[in-house]
Order: sequence, then C-alpha cells, then structure tokens
Amino acid sequence: MQTVLTGITTTGTPHLGNYVGAIRPAIAESLTPNTRSFFFLADLHALIKCHDPKQVHQSTLEVAATWLALGLDPERTVFYRQSDIPEIPQLTWILTCMTSKGLMNRAHAYKAAVQANEEERSADPDAGITMGLYCYPILMAADILMFNAHIVPVGKDQVQHIEMTRDIAQRFNHHYGEHFVLPEARVDESTAILVGLDGRKMSKSYNNYIPLFVPQKTLRKMIMRIVTNSQGPEEPKDTDCPLFQMYSAFATPEQTETMRQRFAQGIAWGIVKEELFELIDAQLATPRHRYEELMRHPEHIEAILRTGAAKARAISAPFLERIKRAVGISALG
Amino acid sequence: MQTVLTGITTTGTPHLGNYVGAIRPAIAESLTPNTRSFFFLADLHALIKCHDPKQVHQSTLEVAATWLALGLDPERTVFYRQSDIPEIPQLTWILTCMTSKGLMNRAHAYKAAVQANEEERSADPDAGITMGLYCYPILMAADILMFNAHIVPVGKDQVQHIEMTRDIAQRFNHHYGEHFVLPEARVDESTAILVGLDGRKMSKSYNNYIPLFVPQKTLRKMIMRIVTNSQGPEEPKDTDCPLFQMYSAFATPEQTETMRQRFAQGIAWGIVKEELFELIDAQLATPRHRYEELMRHPEHIEAILRTGAAKARAISAPFLERIKRAVGISALG
Repeated sequence: MQTVLTGITTTGTPHLGNYVGAIRPAIAESLTPNTRSFFFLADLHALIKCHDPKQVHQSTLEVAATWLALGLDPERTVFYRQSDIPEIPQLTWILTCMTSKGLMNRAHAYKAAVQANEEERSADPDAGITMGLYCYPILMAADILMFNAHIVPVGKDQVQHIEMTRDIAQRFNHHYGEHFVLPEARVDESTAILVGLDGRKMSKSYNNYIPLFVPQKTLRKMIMRIVTNSQGPEEPKDTDCPLFQMYSAFATPEQTETMRQRFAQGIAWGIVKEELFELIDAQLATPRHRYEELMRHPEHIEAILRTGAAKARAISAPFLERIKRAVGISALG
Repeated sequence: MQTVLTGITTTGTPHLGNYVGAIRPAIAESLTPNTRSFFFLADLHALIKCHDPKQVHQSTLEVAATWLALGLDPERTVFYRQSDIPEIPQLTWILTCMTSKGLMNRAHAYKAAVQANEEERSADPDAGITMGLYCYPILMAADILMFNAHIVPVGKDQVQHIEMTRDIAQRFNHHYGEHFVLPEARVDESTAILVGLDGRKMSKSYNNYIPLFVPQKTLRKMIMRIVTNSQGPEEPKDTDCPLFQMYSAFATPEQTETMRQRFAQGIAWGIVKEELFELIDAQLATPRHRYEELMRHPEHIEAILRTGAAKARAISAPFLERIKRAVGISALG
C-alpha cells in the first residue's frame, strides 16, 4: 500500500493547464488499487502569496468544487483543507527546531527572490521577502511527513522541496529515532504541459490561461484567440505548435494521429480551433455541470471537507502525540 | 483590567536568580487587583535549544512545581503549557506570512550567532544556526498576541522581541483590520539580579547557580562556597559584593540597613554567609516542602495544567477563528 499526497494551493481559478498537468493524472491515480491518496487544499500556503481574504476564500471554494466535479472520490481518498488540521502547524514548529538555516538559504524560490533584488540593485537582498516565502519548505515538510507519504507527485521546480523534506526527516529520525517515512518526489515527464493563449506555458502568473469551467461560449471564444502563425488554410503545418499540443492533450492517440496527418496535408487554423473546442467541451460538459451545481451549494463542499478533516485527524492527532513524546512533550506523571 | 503574560522556558532547573528576578515579582503581581495574568510553560521554545527529550520533560515538571510551590494560584491566573494550545502554532504560521525576513535578520540572538561564526572565520555565517533560533521571535509574537496581552515583563535582552511583536501586529492590523493589541515590554529596573557562585550574573549558562529547591544541607553548602575576598573578620567591608547583594534580595529594608552597618563595622564573611543561609532557608522552607510534595504527584500538576489549557483555549480557539476569517480561511457556504 503506497501513500500518495498532493497539495493544491488555493490561489486563483483552476485552468486547463492545471487539469491536464495535475488534476487529471492525480484523480486517475487515486482510483488505482494499492494506493492511499491524500489531497489537500493548501490554504496555509496560499497565505504566503495572497493577502486578499476574498480571493483565498473564493479560490478554496473553486478548487474544491473543481476536484470534486472532475471525479475526486472523497470516499476513496482523504480530501481535506490544510487549515482544518491543527497538527500540521504544530509539527511545522517541531520540524523548524530541527531544520538548519543553511538548508533554507539554498531554496530556489528564496534564492530567486534574492537575485531579483540584486538585479534591481536593492540595498537589502531580503527586501520585500516575507518569512512565509522563506519558511515554506518546512510547512511543506510537515504536510508530507504528517501522513508519512511515500510519493509526492510534483513539477520539476518542486523536487528540491521534497529533498529538503527528506533532509529534515532524516535529521529528526537520526536524533529522535525512526518516526518519519522519507518521501520520494515523482516527476511525470510524460505529463502534458499546456501552452497558454500567448504561446508561453499556461500559468496563473502569466495570465494567459483558459479557466477550466467557463461557460461554453467563453471557452469557444478563448480557444479562438489562441495565437497561431499566418499560414494559409491549404499550407502544411508544423505540429510543434500550441494548438496541436493542446489538441493531443485531450485527444486519444488515434485522434492525435489523424490530426497530425491533417496538419501535414494542410488544415485551416480555424478548423483546428473549432475541433479543439468541440473535443474539450465534450470532455468538460458533464464536470462543468457538476461544478456549477457544487458552486451553488458550498455547504455541501464544506460538509465533505469536514468529513475529510475528521479522517485526516484520525491519523494526524495520534501521530503528533507520538512525535511530541519523542521530543519530550507528554503528560506529566 | 490589564492582561499580563509571562512565559517560562522549560530548560533546566529554576535557581535563586530566577526566583528573585522573575518568579517572585510575577507571582506578587498576579495577586494584585485589575490584572489578568497568563503564565505558560514555554516548552515549544525549549525545543529550540534543548534536543534532549528527558530534560525537556523533567524541566517542565520542575518549573511547573516551582511556580505552584511559590504561590502561583491557578484559580486566579491562567497557567498552561504552551504545547497544549494548538492555536499558538497555527497563529505562528499566519504571522509568519506577515513578517518580513529583514525583521528577523535584525534579531539580537540571531546576529550574535552570526557574529560568533564570523569570529571563528566560518565559511558559512549561518553555520550551526537552526530555523528555531531564527524564527523564535514569531512564535513569541504568537504567544503574546494570542491573548492580547498589554504587558509583557521581560529582561532587557528581550525588549527587542516585544518591539518585533508590535511590528508584526501592526502590519497585520494595517492590512487585515484591528485585531491585535500592541503589547508593551515592562523592564523592572529595580528587580534584583543575583550574582552567582563565581561572581558573574547567576545563570544556567554559566553553571554558577544555586538551585531553588535543594535540600537544606546542600543550600547551606552552596552558600558557603560563594566567592569573597580575603579580608579578615574585623575589617570594614564594601557592600558592593555578591553576598551583600544576595542578602538584600531576600531581606526587609530594615534587615538590609542593619547588615550595611555591620559591614561598615567589620563582620566575618562566615557570619554573613551563615545569616544569609538562615534568611533564605526560612523563606524557602515552606515552598520547598510544597515543591517536594508536588514532585511526588506529577499527576496533580498535569491536572492543573489541563484545567489551565481549557481556560486558555476558551480564549484562543474563538480568537483564532476570528483571525482565520480575517485572512480568508472560514467555512464555505
């Protein structure tokens, strides 16, 4: 039995890139046998970057509704909101005491922020950097170690954080005895990375994304806006382009092969876009309907999250007691 | 009604210097009207420096027994173990996201550790520094802000931490609305600072201290060991010496005045030591008896701490809910 843990930061609205790159494979995996899946809404992580309370709240709702609409089964998985598990920040502090500052100095996200300051010739290399950004790998370690996850599916940029989690866990285990499983990062190289409307990687930060559950008409309009080159309808086209890549992310291998041949023979961009829209819309129609239904009943989502938190805490509460005992914190007498 | 909050780190055994400098004035104040006192065993802080589970546990017991034996009234005060309040680490993380890294860079304790590395010409200025030491002011801010303390009695070396707490609270209030009281440090200049056996300030770190509740015989032996000069019994003596200072820390003003005259007239060091022992022993005899009784029944202390935690959480749990709501974390629907 393998434990797989996935966190989803609750800032912004899920988009097609998130679906293809993270949500779809994660939900598929959660349905395979011999896997115990933990999914959590990382709202404590959201606070690092997002100081807009309405956005944190709205995004939590949208992200939860999205995963449920796309088939996440709260009966088969442990699906919870990070902030509902008080044991996580408690473990974070205990791990903080076993983490060397040098380790945090080497974190990519922090180093990138320092470099940006240096490039702007700021007098203080730490200008504008919050402790949230700096300490984030420790909270992430607590997220993972709390449930002794074996596997953490991540993007390449997150691999370092899993290594840091292992470092922290190893140091703790070495000093206090074997308590934590050392997790492994899993980077799925085959996972599609969608290109956004402007040709760069689809991302919240570039604001070039297509939200997952927009109305049909909006979806069509946005797909029609994807950047192409100026080749005429009859000209053979290179499949190394955003439209083809997006098509293949949603199509069967057979459909993709057929489209590849049509590209070689010459196909109008307008037709590709039309077929892409139909392909995506067909796959999203039912989840979109479920999503809209869920969004109308946030109290149902809340009930699901509370049940999930109870399941998670049935594990985290006794495990934290064990960790506290290991460091010397337990009942007197 | 003023709220006063005092934390006691649970590393080591309380000594005479702690009693005179912190415990005695704090307990006296807790008995004055218009004051609501919070006392907590700072075991999460203990983890920063002490990675010996047995010592953390034993010290928690000894510190709790000491305060209770000396008259801390758990009915009149809120007396709790920090780690029993899960809201504190939760608040710590929320504050972490609102704390600038530059603020932590300026903390005295961190800067002293960096300087020590530089003096040793270490290649890494952060060598051996843990994130616990670095983040400690944020945990302390959470301790204080959780209960909206007005006054935090501290030694001079801790004043900066209270200023940092104000900084963090101000930044939070400015962004999310007025939620936190800005605390004030209170440094009591009149509080006696005891000199230890070797003539330096009595301190755990110098290992020059007299434990508060040693058996009578041991107490006598340790007092006899206090360093003096080699003046003969008849010679007039300077009152600017450890023995006189310790005497006056326990004596009434009248007793002190009489002793001052005897110093001027000439008094043998041996007699001063004998009278000092009798003075201290008379004051500690009853608490020592209570202490020994409490140490025989750690389960009674545990029960007191649990009651205290329930009182503290009746405040911290709803207040954390309010803070979470302010940052965007609340029930959906």
